[in-house]
Amino acid sequence: MLSAVAATGGNKLENKEISQAVIARLPRYFRFLGELKDEGIERISSQELSDIMKVTASQIRQDFNNFGGFGQQGYGYKVEYLYEEIGRILGLDRTHNLIIIGAGNLGQALANYINFERRGFLFKGIFDNDPELLGTKIRNMEVRPMEEMETFVRENEIDIAVLTIPKASAAAVAEKLAGTRIRGIWNFAHMDLNVPREVQVENVHLSDSLMKLIYNINKRDENF
Amino acid sequence: MLSAVAATGGNKLENKEISQAVIARLPRYFRFLGELKDEGIERISSQELSDIMKVTASQIRQDFNNFGGFGQQGYGYKVEYLYEEIGRILGLDRTHNLIIIGAGNLGQALANYINFERRGFLFKGIFDNDPELLGTKIRNMEVRPMEEMETFVRENEIDIAVLTIPKASAAAVAEKLAGTRIRGIWNFAHMDLNVPREVQVENVHLSDSLMKLIYNINKRDENF
Repeated sequence: MLSAVAATGGNKLENKEISQAVIARLPRYFRFLGELKDEGIERISSQELSDIMKVTASQIRQDFNNFGGFGQQGYGYKVEYLYEEIGRILGLDRTHNLIIIGAGNLGQALANYINFERRGFLFKGIFDNDPELLGTKIRNMEVRPMEEMETFVRENEIDIAVLTIPKASAAAVAEKLAGTRIRGIWNFAHMDLNVPREVQVENVHLSDSLMKLIYNINKRDENF
Repeated sequence: MLSAVAATGGNKLENKEISQAVIARLPRYFRFLGELKDEGIERISSQELSDIMKVTASQIRQDFNNFGGFGQQGYGYKVEYLYEEIGRILGLDRTHNLIIIGAGNLGQALANYINFERRGFLFKGIFDNDPELLGTKIRNMEVRPMEEMETFVRENEIDIAVLTIPKASAAAVAEKLAGTRIRGIWNFAHMDLNVPREVQVENVHLSDSLMKLIYNINKRDENF
């Protein structure tokens, strides 16, 4: 199994559809394993990993079994190997070219988040229609007008568009993007986008997340 | 059922623990119902709602049954009533005082996101240790030094802290916060926090979300 995973970069295995719940947990495994690696820890048992991550050891084993297991019974997991395998499964062994659409505070925050580059997420351009922003530099990028977006995407082999624009304009921009080579939209606009199924959308609806927190706070109050 | 929900503001019902999966869907219902309301639509059937939201009608009915149903058989849901009930369940009929810890790009982005105020999320203060930021104004707030945080939280009846600081300092700040009246942490620091169970934590791990998108893009490529 291990060699099979290694040989395929863990990728072929994914074609058995793996639940989005499992996928959603992979980055968290990747993050914790990266920390263990940085601490110089070479091996870890599913039980130790379970204690750190506060998920059950059986959950961990189940999750990893989706990708061939990774573990040597009794010896635990090799941290660096597991870290790299999960990274490969996530596609972090490749670089991806991104553009940001919307050069407001949030767009700037993401453009300036250097950790993304370490992961191979390369911000190539940032776009906005605000005349005041056009031409200004954000990190190493000059803010460009929206009209240049489609050409820029083609010429710079952009894979992913990050939408940090208001709801009002998001639908039209998403439609434009769907006509390009863009394969993924990381959507911060507070609406669900209608795009062809070839285009993957990952939503970050911040208000939804805050409302969930509010609910849990108020619920807890009642229970005390 | 309806009156029971109305009478309790839908709140008592929640003490039967409701799965976080259902809770996580409430803000999305709230968002779509708000849009319907703004469009002047008064009634909607679970089927119509299902078509717009792209979830099954039975899922919708199941979710709503957690809170007493809301619906009149055959007549569909009253949009405004449902919108207000879900808002009340989420706790949006109350205001909440927030502080932002970390006045960088992301902290500024959140501070400037006016829609939060409409929902009753009131940003009262913003804190940072960067001498260059201290005293500068972000929206209507002066950036204050971290040392003032605990006093400020007490004197301004702060409920929620938004953590937009680097991983390195997040753990220590979370520990400080746990000693205050803070009931919720909206955590953008790229780590999981250890806080007492009275403090609710909602994580927004942006890298995790982007990695999930990358995975789905690369997986799709293989399937084509």
